[in-house]
Amino acid sequence: MAENETLVGIIMGSQSDWGTMKEAAKILDELGISNEAKIISAHRTPQRLHDYVDAADAKGMKIIIAGAGAAAHLAGVTAALTTLPVLGVPMESPALKGMDSLLSTVQMPGGIPVATLAIGKAGAKNAGLFATAIIALSDKDVSERLIAWRKKQAAAIPLDPVD
Amino acid sequence: MAENETLVGIIMGSQSDWGTMKEAAKILDELGISNEAKIISAHRTPQRLHDYVDAADAKGMKIIIAGAGAAAHLAGVTAALTTLPVLGVPMESPALKGMDSLLSTVQMPGGIPVATLAIGKAGAKNAGLFATAIIALSDKDVSERLIAWRKKQAAAIPLDPVD
Amino acid sequence: MAENETLVGIIMGSQSDWGTMKEAAKILDELGISNEAKIISAHRTPQRLHDYVDAADAKGMKIIIAGAGAAAHLAGVTAALTTLPVLGVPMESPALKGMDSLLSTVQMPGGIPVATLAIGKAGAKNAGLFATAIIALSDKDVSERLIAWRKKQAAAIPLDPVD
Amino acid sequence: MAENETLVGIIMGSQSDWGTMKEAAKILDELGISNEAKIISAHRTPQRLHDYVDAADAKGMKIIIAGAGAAAHLAGVTAALTTLPVLGVPMESPALKGMDSLLSTVQMPGGIPVATLAIGKAGAKNAGLFATAIIALSDKDVSERLIAWRKKQAAAIPLDPVD
Amino acid sequence: MAENETLVGIIMGSQSDWGTMKEAAKILDELGISNEAKIISAHRTPQRLHDYVDAADAKGMKIIIAGAGAAAHLAGVTAALTTLPVLGVPMESPALKGMDSLLSTVQMPGGIPVATLAIGKAGAKNAGLFATAIIALSDKDVSERLIAWRKKQAAAIPLDPVD
Amino acid sequence: MAENETLVGIIMGSQSDWGTMKEAAKILDELGISNEAKIISAHRTPQRLHDYVDAADAKGMKIIIAGAGAAAHLAGVTAALTTLPVLGVPMESPALKGMDSLLSTVQMPGGIPVATLAIGKAGAKNAGLFATAIIALSDKDVSERLIAWRKKQAAAIPLDPVD
Amino acid sequence: MAENETLVGIIMGSQSDWGTMKEAAKILDELGISNEAKIISAHRTPQRLHDYVDAADAKGMKIIIAGAGAAAHLAGVTAALTTLPVLGVPMESPALKGMDSLLSTVQMPGGIPVATLAIGKAGAKNAGLFATAIIALSDKDVSERLIAWRKKQAAAIPLDPVD
Amino acid sequence: MAENETLVGIIMGSQSDWGTMKEAAKILDELGISNEAKIISAHRTPQRLHDYVDAADAKGMKIIIAGAGAAAHLAGVTAALTTLPVLGVPMESPALKGMDSLLSTVQMPGGIPVATLAIGKAGAKNAGLFATAIIALSDKDVSERLIAWRKKQAAAIPLDPVD
Repeated sequence: MAENETLVGIIMGSQSDWGTMKEAAKILDELGISNEAKIISAHRTPQRLHDYVDAADAKGMKIIIAGAGAAAHLAGVTAALTTLPVLGVPMESPALKGMDSLLSTVQMPGGIPVATLAIGKAGAKNAGLFATAIIALSDKDVSERLIAWRKKQAAAIPLDPVD
Repeated sequence: MAENETLVGIIMGSQSDWGTMKEAAKILDELGISNEAKIISAHRTPQRLHDYVDAADAKGMKIIIAGAGAAAHLAGVTAALTTLPVLGVPMESPALKGMDSLLSTVQMPGGIPVATLAIGKAGAKNAGLFATAIIALSDKDVSERLIAWRKKQAAAIPLDPVD
Repeated sequence: MAENETLVGIIMGSQSDWGTMKEAAKILDELGISNEAKIISAHRTPQRLHDYVDAADAKGMKIIIAGAGAAAHLAGVTAALTTLPVLGVPMESPALKGMDSLLSTVQMPGGIPVATLAIGKAGAKNAGLFATAIIALSDKDVSERLIAWRKKQAAAIPLDPVD
Repeated sequence: MAENETLVGIIMGSQSDWGTMKEAAKILDELGISNEAKIISAHRTPQRLHDYVDAADAKGMKIIIAGAGAAAHLAGVTAALTTLPVLGVPMESPALKGMDSLLSTVQMPGGIPVATLAIGKAGAKNAGLFATAIIALSDKDVSERLIAWRKKQAAAIPLDPVD
Repeated sequence: MAENETLVGIIMGSQSDWGTMKEAAKILDELGISNEAKIISAHRTPQRLHDYVDAADAKGMKIIIAGAGAAAHLAGVTAALTTLPVLGVPMESPALKGMDSLLSTVQMPGGIPVATLAIGKAGAKNAGLFATAIIALSDKDVSERLIAWRKKQAAAIPLDPVD
Repeated sequence: MAENETLVGIIMGSQSDWGTMKEAAKILDELGISNEAKIISAHRTPQRLHDYVDAADAKGMKIIIAGAGAAAHLAGVTAALTTLPVLGVPMESPALKGMDSLLSTVQMPGGIPVATLAIGKAGAKNAGLFATAIIALSDKDVSERLIAWRKKQAAAIPLDPVD
Repeated sequence: MAENETLVGIIMGSQSDWGTMKEAAKILDELGISNEAKIISAHRTPQRLHDYVDAADAKGMKIIIAGAGAAAHLAGVTAALTTLPVLGVPMESPALKGMDSLLSTVQMPGGIPVATLAIGKAGAKNAGLFATAIIALSDKDVSERLIAWRKKQAAAIPLDPVD
Repeated sequence: MAENETLVGIIMGSQSDWGTMKEAAKILDELGISNEAKIISAHRTPQRLHDYVDAADAKGMKIIIAGAGAAAHLAGVTAALTTLPVLGVPMESPALKGMDSLLSTVQMPGGIPVATLAIGKAGAKNAGLFATAIIALSDKDVSERLIAWRKKQAAAIPLDPVD
């Protein structure tokens, strides 16, 4: 792996999504997967999205995680521009609580896949874990780190609830 | 109006949407508004969408009607590429009956508007009528035809239901 | 354009909708489109609505933006009284979070169109932008201001999220 | 009761609603309550609705039953024009199966009530029964017929299911 | 009308519903309609409900307003025990925001009607107004008070929104 | 166990529910649990429901399975009249596809439990299995039959799908 | 009953569910039913779940109550591993307010039943009451305590609401 | 790649899912990705699932695609047993049209990811495409085939709709 590779690109529709999407960055950092986070709106900055996807290969990027809310088109439009795996994270939107974001992200028509995680922070964290699982397929060190993380996670859950 | 102008562009994500979207074409034809219909998928043919929007001005196009289903991004992505008014028509999707199409189309974030009509054929017909209403603002003939059409519509409704 | 024209009428079902609907007024003001805001309830003041629509032509009004919540009939009833383009903005209602407002506004039967924007403030702002886009079709100055606004909006989005 | 009184007016948005709404007429006929059925669209024939409501008192009308589908404004708009009790029946709409009709009818804001029955034929039948219950409050014969009908209904239900 | 008649009975499933249901009592008081409010749970106090309905006639009761939340059976079970008109008010429930209450109240099968108002305070107020409208059918004084109230309500709505 | 005991009572709101509810009877028969099926409507035959529940103890009844649709009150009202375990089966209703039946059955307020199974035939079958599981707690033969049935079920599932 | 039996096992997906699930423990304690509460995640600690179910018989456990949120698989996976009755309690999830938890718990396919209670605290309390009702079938003391509790509950409800 | 490797395992809850899930197998076959399809129910055959996941590594399996309906736990339970990427495909369920399947699959809690595709056939096809995209990351031939397939897909869409 080259020094300056960025394996995972995290993009999001607006600054307000960062509170959620940083869960993806945190777990990727914890598992030692290089990543970067950028604000790119499918609607307000369509050219920036094109440029970002065009530059992905040169950075050695393997996976793009796209988080957006409401009529959440970012993941789908990204997937239309690349054959890299695109993971979608629906934001919890103010009125409809993420149901709009979820359906806009997951219900992609046949031909252009977006693989979607849960609404909100759990989804952002799991997008990071899923990206790691993909990278682990061809990187034994990452695979071992992921397995260790999963064991640690299980062990950290107390058996008895506390008041 | 030039001979070869096309005032309204009707675009749709796939051939299967035409059964619905032709309601827009039919009412525009009936009201004498030049229009054309094209299959353009935001996801499967993104370049075709760019080219279409780029060419719209040269055709004298005033309004774009975009019909799509499920994770229906077509109207929103079109609106991101132009400042022309974009009308969205959500298709009745097989599983969720258009609720996914509706939320994906109408819940656009502030800054890039899509004006959305009802799910399915009623929405397609009304998109044609709404486009006509916009054109009527600067074309007295169209305005008169639209007013006449509305009166005819009202008069055609029988007062007594029949078994 | 006459000095005292009002191009866009913003109407809403109650005072409590103003916190949302003023987003429409603000963007219209910013883009230099004359507008006025009035409280008109389809249910509690039906006569006021008739009078308002009857007077719209004399004011040179081109577009009516109607915001209402719950069983939100205002946009539909307005559209029944005029052939001007009517834009609907569903309020975020207390119990059902705007799903009732959205369906009551967008699911208009064929024949009387209402073009609907998103639930809440994003929808109100986009109604203002969409009305501007309609006016821009026949006013080159407005068109240029709208294009400039869109560019400024894109440029104002930072690339890097901040904690 | 005068010979030519019509106690209950049944109105509906279109001919296609009659298959549902005739359940209201049938039960009213069965219970001996004078009624009439008319097609009146809140959106396509708003003037007809005004005229109908204006004439209701002269006919001795006590209750209006309004059936409509999708963005179902008919009951609410009728209630805005009269202080007579207005009963709403949401039609089973093609895409959203009546959820849109239900919310558009029942979620009336405080001040103008619509009392809503179930979606579809059960709702239409119950609107007829509810109108009868209102009339029964001041007509002992009707009250006795209604009580008898309820007893007959209970007795007609077999205890054992049959294959 | 006898001195000690109670025209409208307001019943509710628990003390926690009173914050909502007192809107019904308030508007009935304002319009001079005698009423009483009682806590009666269809599930936890079924015998109390039977006794209450049995005693309704002796009190001269004309209408029962039943407010309940979640699996809201109170209105339906009351309607099963009487031929008096029963109005249902769905409470805004904690998890599903009243959607469960609404469907449990409004979707009554054919044969036993419940006429349902909106979720929450608007529905409670409108239940009071609707009960008044029923009573107004046979009481000219009440009818005049209701018409006056409606006019006052319309007049009290300011035309201009205030910040 | 006495000869003429009926361990499980299956009740349903109408004959039309039997096509679904007989799945409960079939699995109980298969597992050798005595049962009977009756049509009892919470709304149309409330007295029949009271009589049925009053007689349950004398029959040695242990569990009541109640299937109903739309505003499905049958299970809840039954649970209000007995401390026997009551299982609810929501019917697939015509308009809302069982969402109304489900919420009306499962969302019982604290104090009177209904344990709810899935919408439709799967729920009816599982109600029978769940009733068997309860009886198995104090009947070793039933327990063994249930365990054997579960093993047979697993073994009957082929590993390879066939076209 | 042996001294050290635990009749009811309460398991939950995470510590954060305990605030809800302790309602089950409280009512079981109040009714004198031995119980224990453990944190067991179907996803993060699958082996712990296997071990727990394997050990249930030896403890004399009769019923397992499983509370989980979002994609709530705990009750279903538990039911797959045992023929004991499994009660599911859907947590009120942050984004979708428990609708996801409810459907994930209740919509079990035919063959493996989960009996589901309401979303949140009411459901947890009712799970405890339902478990008690099962135990009461073969324990006369418990049956008497449950009947007494139900009577006390009814008597504790005041008839008059207080402001 | 070894001769007898199976890169993608397709598992599904029952034979009835195969009509949908074979879309995944078909696209994988078309793109030359070795795959196998098996019926494995998380609920009815939990041991079979354990055995299958345990054997996955030995087969060189890289990705598991899990399709299930209603309370669709298969993908989540699989993901709990492995760190391989697991893709979920929600079946279109009979009553709730896949909304239950979707929420049960996608709303996984943080820590155990399932990446979810659309409801039904489009989702199954896209699961196959997404699995291919993952394999393409470390197999240049697959990458070229995928890019060629995408181009062919775009080219195959006619521009003009046909009646």
